[in-house]
Amino acid sequence: MMHETSSESPASAAGPDFSRNDGLLPAIAQDVATGQVLMLAWMNAEAYAETVRTGRAVYFSRSRGRLWRKGEESGHAQRVHQILVDCDADTILLRVEQVGAACHEGYPTCFFREVTPDGLRVVETRLVDPSTVYRRKSE
Amino acid sequence: MMHETSSESPASAAGPDFSRNDGLLPAIAQDVATGQVLMLAWMNAEAYAETVRTGRAVYFSRSRGRLWRKGEESGHAQRVHQILVDCDADTILLRVEQVGAACHEGYPTCFFREVTPDGLRVVETRLVDPSTVYRRKSE
Repeated sequence: MMHETSSESPASAAGPDFSRNDGLLPAIAQDVATGQVLMLAWMNAEAYAETVRTGRAVYFSRSRGRLWRKGEESGHAQRVHQILVDCDADTILLRVEQVGAACHEGYPTCFFREVTPDGLRVVETRLVDPSTVYRRKSE
Repeated sequence: MMHETSSESPASAAGPDFSRNDGLLPAIAQDVATGQVLMLAWMNAEAYAETVRTGRAVYFSRSRGRLWRKGEESGHAQRVHQILVDCDADTILLRVEQVGAACHEGYPTCFFREVTPDGLRVVETRLVDPSTVYRRKSE
């Protein structure tokens, strides 16, 4: 679907600029069908290159310190339909088809809580029980 | 519309957790009417508190090292309709009504370029000429 962009290539000409933000750029995943914002994760050049090459969203997990192939445990992968970059080429927007629940808490989006005067309020419905999905505590 | 959340309050109970990510959290602005992702910027506790208090999006500009009241130069402000946090309470999603162009380049969204095999391709139409909007080089 898309070619692989070398991290050495001039950023604004070809893709994200991994010389910025210490090589770790925020990547927003948005449902291509509904427009719902699903999650924000991080990509380094390697995660981005694999995403482009495979058409599946691959992030860099800051907590685990390694590539995180979204859905590798849960099966809840993201098929990438479109990749956009922002004006500074230091934020990535993935328009994806989400398999199952985007959030490891079992919700369709990680943004399932609204800030209200009375605290956080859950505004989404759980799709799956996380305990049936994950072998480990969380993705 | 929303109450002010102290940065000292327990994060997951009341709002974003500014103890994470060195106190600077990514904030995604999404058009509340169309679902279009407009931009990603950064918020510290002070920017967040002012956003909640005023109902206008206020970010922390990393390049200028100070609060950035979106639209302060351009007039292209964002009226905040809803604030959501993600599962880790370290990313903020603002659902906003955007006045004018979200992007300082004059496009409705900062994500106006798609990654293609032939490089970046502009996929949005400019709303305004930036040179007529900004006194300084860029917002």
